[in-house]
Amino acid sequence: MTSRPEFAARTAGMRPSKLRELVAAAARPSAGDVPGPTLLSLGGGLPPAEAFPARAVAEAAERALAGAAGAALQYSATEGDPELLDLVGADLAGRLRLPDPTGRLLVTTGSQQALDLIGKVLLDPGDVAVVESPAYVGALRALAGYQPRIVEAPVDDDGMDTELLAGRLRAGLRPKLCYLVPNFSNPSGRTLTARRRTRLAQLAARYGFLIVEDDPYGQLRFAGADLPPVAADAAEQVVYLGSFSKLVAPGLRVGYLAAPRWLHRALAVAKQATDLNSAALSQRLLVELLADPDWFAGHLAGLRDLYRVRAEALTGAVADRLAGRLATPMPDGGMFVWASVQTPGIDALALARAAMRRAVSVVPGNEFSLADGYPRHLRLSFSMLGPAGLVAAVDRLGDAFDDLTASG
Amino acid sequence: MTSRPEFAARTAGMRPSKLRELVAAAARPSAGDVPGPTLLSLGGGLPPAEAFPARAVAEAAERALAGAAGAALQYSATEGDPELLDLVGADLAGRLRLPDPTGRLLVTTGSQQALDLIGKVLLDPGDVAVVESPAYVGALRALAGYQPRIVEAPVDDDGMDTELLAGRLRAGLRPKLCYLVPNFSNPSGRTLTARRRTRLAQLAARYGFLIVEDDPYGQLRFAGADLPPVAADAAEQVVYLGSFSKLVAPGLRVGYLAAPRWLHRALAVAKQATDLNSAALSQRLLVELLADPDWFAGHLAGLRDLYRVRAEALTGAVADRLAGRLATPMPDGGMFVWASVQTPGIDALALARAAMRRAVSVVPGNEFSLADGYPRHLRLSFSMLGPAGLVAAVDRLGDAFDDLTASG
Repeated sequence: MTSRPEFAARTAGMRPSKLRELVAAAARPSAGDVPGPTLLSLGGGLPPAEAFPARAVAEAAERALAGAAGAALQYSATEGDPELLDLVGADLAGRLRLPDPTGRLLVTTGSQQALDLIGKVLLDPGDVAVVESPAYVGALRALAGYQPRIVEAPVDDDGMDTELLAGRLRAGLRPKLCYLVPNFSNPSGRTLTARRRTRLAQLAARYGFLIVEDDPYGQLRFAGADLPPVAADAAEQVVYLGSFSKLVAPGLRVGYLAAPRWLHRALAVAKQATDLNSAALSQRLLVELLADPDWFAGHLAGLRDLYRVRAEALTGAVADRLAGRLATPMPDGGMFVWASVQTPGIDALALARAAMRRAVSVVPGNEFSLADGYPRHLRLSFSMLGPAGLVAAVDRLGDAFDDLTASG
Repeated sequence: MTSRPEFAARTAGMRPSKLRELVAAAARPSAGDVPGPTLLSLGGGLPPAEAFPARAVAEAAERALAGAAGAALQYSATEGDPELLDLVGADLAGRLRLPDPTGRLLVTTGSQQALDLIGKVLLDPGDVAVVESPAYVGALRALAGYQPRIVEAPVDDDGMDTELLAGRLRAGLRPKLCYLVPNFSNPSGRTLTARRRTRLAQLAARYGFLIVEDDPYGQLRFAGADLPPVAADAAEQVVYLGSFSKLVAPGLRVGYLAAPRWLHRALAVAKQATDLNSAALSQRLLVELLADPDWFAGHLAGLRDLYRVRAEALTGAVADRLAGRLATPMPDGGMFVWASVQTPGIDALALARAAMRRAVSVVPGNEFSLADGYPRHLRLSFSMLGPAGLVAAVDRLGDAFDDLTASG
């Protein structure tokens, strides 16, 4: 085939995920045939099975498939099931301050598809895409397929540093888009301050770029007060991405986007070309679930408690047992802590490997940067283990530190 | 935004579907607020609600979501649920004569996503893509996004004319891929002969192009004997696409591909970048359903009967009432008849519009060709109406003919 070398080059930018391999390893109950302790996962970013409302989903399925099950089993409109669009629109009308959100909405096959569609419609090879750094690896991978020049914009305690970005823009940087997770980011755990949200929207308007506001965790806040999305009062500058993967279940594979009016139709046409529509059955299950707002509010409150307890258990155990060796700032929500290694001479990749030998998985920071900018960081997820499991995992991480200092 | 004109150009190739608009019209129970007869649809290519095994799906959902519902609600592997891959692999091992299919398989979000992934991995702007003509509009739309030069290869009674294609290849045409639906194609209803299947595989090997064999209807054969897929004995030249949309329900949004080994990994990496994985819940429902092969065989036998009776009703009614005006060759399976207008001076688009005024929808032939090559053809779908409805629809089509000849 004449085309083999060419497509090999094409997919080189979409580097397959080491993270996925760690996730796969973490999913195994023990390390293959070798007898030993069960692997404890601080690695993957998956919601735990106990966060899934399996019974409510089963009852929703029964209702959606009873009688005339046509809508649940048929193709749906490309934009999404009309009732789901209404429910999402009603939610976003308040949160995004959109007077009429429905004409801006598109149901997507997870937020990952939204990222792909945005790349497909907006990016030509060589275009500049600004991405917060450290960044969600799925965003790097989705955008990389369209061969942009990816510029990393550093995150500090207050989220993406908008003044650093402003300096780059004044110096001539002209991005087509700027990607970030404003709430409890993956992997940084950081939240963009209200002041910076306003500032970012101003920069987008002034320099003519699109903000891609990816918000899968915003409704999983367990400390502090909600902040308005960047899209609030800046709807023509922002594509806002939401997802039910962390709020209900990833297995439904349903997310959504709210786009500026000038972009919405192009995204819908691209969606039709890409997979026609997202699974109608999943959409109808969500309609059944969201039609009971009290149930949904209670479910979300339960999730927030679950993750708060786990975040406290993880950061507390690190403070107790790894003080001076690992720093783990407490996030205000979500699933992740961005830990920094304090011990001189210990590299995060070496620590991650030593941890794996002690049967605990963590993700080294360089996974979240094309520039390998985080050799001293680890992403720790507190989603998969209960408090006792988190304490045990931190103990093993302490053993991994000991292994490295003993051998070093 | 500097990017607006650019993305407008980008999506121009993905022309939105007039077909979708007709489908939307056909889905309405009556023509809006205007009192009048219910629209009868020969237009859309949707399976009818009575073809959906709603009760079996509901029972499968109950099983998949009982107890440890983790697999149904969690992320799945990018390649697909392992048990679903085993079931699909066992089916394809026989049909495609593949000794070890599992390493070639990828579950996709419908076959539409497979087409998008193939375009994404293989096509650069200006590359030649051969597409059978008339062609499935979703394939035209998926490929168009990657800006290839699309060359239409005409179909005759025996499917794509491989000798015409061979002539173009000898004359210097160098496609990267060749797309076709070998069994009861949408829209032509034609089936590629065994001789031409072998010939096409020879041409692909000789001229170094990939065959994209899209086979959503192959298991809906109601006349004649099954033919081996093009992929049989040519696995390194063919991506074979299958789908459960027509065999179980489109609402699950699950298809799959079997790729040459040299292409599989690139497609899986692109899939991961595009939507991470297809809905795990839908995949687990299919595992539950396919785990009972007797149930599935019986269900498919029922579908074949349903569509055979409808195909006979439609072609019989046309022979009875529209002889000399419309020719409708009987297909051996699937959902479509490719009808040709016999009355001199009557254009298919005018007839489709006259038919809509008589409350029956059909799709004019030019929808299925970028070159507008079918001004005298209509696609008639017999999937949506029962025999009596089909006869009534043909009566209305006769009225539409009368309207045109009276006014002309």
